[in-house]
Amino acid sequence: MKATVMYGAGDVRVENVLDPRIVRPTDALVRVTRACICGSDLWPYQQMKPTPGGRRMGHEFIGIVEDAGSDVRTVKKGDLVVAPFAWSDGTCEFCQHGLQTSCLHGGFWGGELDGGQGEAVRVPFADGTLVKLPVAPDHALMPSLLTLTDVMGTGHHAALAAKVAPGKIVAVVGDGAVGLCGVIAARRLGAEQIIRLGRHADRIALARAFGATDIVSERGKEAVERVRELTNGLGAHSVLECVGHGQSTETALGIARAGGAVGRVGVPQQATLPASIPTFFANITVAGGPAPVRAYIEELMPDILEGRIEPGRVFDRTTNLDGVPDGYRAMNEREAIKVMITN
Amino acid sequence: MKATVMYGAGDVRVENVLDPRIVRPTDALVRVTRACICGSDLWPYQQMKPTPGGRRMGHEFIGIVEDAGSDVRTVKKGDLVVAPFAWSDGTCEFCQHGLQTSCLHGGFWGGELDGGQGEAVRVPFADGTLVKLPVAPDHALMPSLLTLTDVMGTGHHAALAAKVAPGKIVAVVGDGAVGLCGVIAARRLGAEQIIRLGRHADRIALARAFGATDIVSERGKEAVERVRELTNGLGAHSVLECVGHGQSTETALGIARAGGAVGRVGVPQQATLPASIPTFFANITVAGGPAPVRAYIEELMPDILEGRIEPGRVFDRTTNLDGVPDGYRAMNEREAIKVMITN
Repeated sequence: MKATVMYGAGDVRVENVLDPRIVRPTDALVRVTRACICGSDLWPYQQMKPTPGGRRMGHEFIGIVEDAGSDVRTVKKGDLVVAPFAWSDGTCEFCQHGLQTSCLHGGFWGGELDGGQGEAVRVPFADGTLVKLPVAPDHALMPSLLTLTDVMGTGHHAALAAKVAPGKIVAVVGDGAVGLCGVIAARRLGAEQIIRLGRHADRIALARAFGATDIVSERGKEAVERVRELTNGLGAHSVLECVGHGQSTETALGIARAGGAVGRVGVPQQATLPASIPTFFANITVAGGPAPVRAYIEELMPDILEGRIEPGRVFDRTTNLDGVPDGYRAMNEREAIKVMITN
Repeated sequence: MKATVMYGAGDVRVENVLDPRIVRPTDALVRVTRACICGSDLWPYQQMKPTPGGRRMGHEFIGIVEDAGSDVRTVKKGDLVVAPFAWSDGTCEFCQHGLQTSCLHGGFWGGELDGGQGEAVRVPFADGTLVKLPVAPDHALMPSLLTLTDVMGTGHHAALAAKVAPGKIVAVVGDGAVGLCGVIAARRLGAEQIIRLGRHADRIALARAFGATDIVSERGKEAVERVRELTNGLGAHSVLECVGHGQSTETALGIARAGGAVGRVGVPQQATLPASIPTFFANITVAGGPAPVRAYIEELMPDILEGRIEPGRVFDRTTNLDGVPDGYRAMNEREAIKVMITN
């Protein structure tokens, strides 16, 4: 089958790989119908050292079950299913507590496994990992349902980690798809004011459509000052850090009010967290990590199916599998917010 | 009057200073009956640069109201009162939400104000700051009531920040008085297992008396391994960081389980927080800061008065004001856990 393989920074290829097949009785084989490129795929796209064996790419996909192992109970051949960006057994200590990204027997797509940016994927622990979708593969809401694999669940996780609740002032750092979904999540959880930090006109328009009440286009210290002006000098109760850079993290901590919380979902690019001392003296909580999106699919799906949220609007470009390398380029050059792949 | 003044590392003196007096109508003048030396006083005792003007010391005291300004409503002359280590107006945005350490008009003792390690203190915002004690100044529980000024409330804050709850596995890093009070707080909040990291026999005995179920005397990586052995390989749900060193913070983060929380109350001695990336991938929450002990006094006091907790046992030495310099030395050399001052 065809699949996306990255061989180093800027070197993404679509090529023939071994067809996946059922290996364990808990596996399912899923024929991918939709997938996408993630902002986090851009980290290796910018930094990956040349890797002769390559790395299989893609961790967001929807597809049709083509085959299922003898122990699989919750999905069957022909079902349309959505996969979270981490696979998990669904039964361990952490899965039981809704932290499937720390599953004792799970992991992330790619590496030894298939990636979502390909024609098919062998899914381990199909019962723990996959969720059946109650619609047809060509349903108009497919883009929004596809965000349940990562960005919508990740924005929701950032909002929960940042303790967003009715009446709160929320700030969102990061103008990618996750930050945009963070705006949706903040509004959905009842935030009173949603301050979006970003400077790209198309993304600002989308943020406003999703519920952002204020836009801050400054950066660094100026951004901190501007957010403080917008919050009576006190800062935001809840800050969603959706980038992972040292600078964006410092900004996020700087705009949180005393007693507030920063929910971070951007993969950190530095070994230490800045501003430990002022963060301590202001009793600011730092929480978050890779979102256990599996835990959120059932909660968020009705809001999509019933039209209350429309996170699929973050996709502003669609391609087929052969167009994936150019999709990476477009996202990396900020021509596109997020690229959807249709098989 | 006599008061304690620090002039540099190791240079603590008890000397005559100006008598305090009411300055504002919201002030009270409190004659100190009990005070103490705090583990955090040892930071300047070890590191303070020579300071010709000196710094007034002490932020934990109980005393008798000697005079009150015309606007003071909640305490009056003759009342026995306890003061938290931060003074606060009791009315601002943060005080209303129980975060008095971030009071918009408050601050900490010492500096321009009197310190607790002296004969008397001018207390700003007496109504917001002081709490009346329903006992006589020589009550047998005075040592425990004195811990409401800081260490018991701080241990409680660490436990809340670390999300201690019934059934949780808790680890406490730091073998000072705050760590010991953290053990009390963890037990009080229903922890199932309380692992205490420490190596001093007298402190271990006290920790066990307070409810510690396991003692880990290793340090660094060995301590992390030992805690993991004691927790089925997973780590503690809740970790109380009661030191503030980079090493102790790294240990605290290393023994937290995925999805767990570290409540830090040790004043951080480094500008950055270590282990940002593993902390992120394990979705570990880092919370805490200076404890708003004012918010906890009413909640904790009945447990002391009714004998359910006895945090006053952390005091293992008593001195008068003239003995304060030697009290600093004794705590710094770990001869004493915590020194009480009787006036």
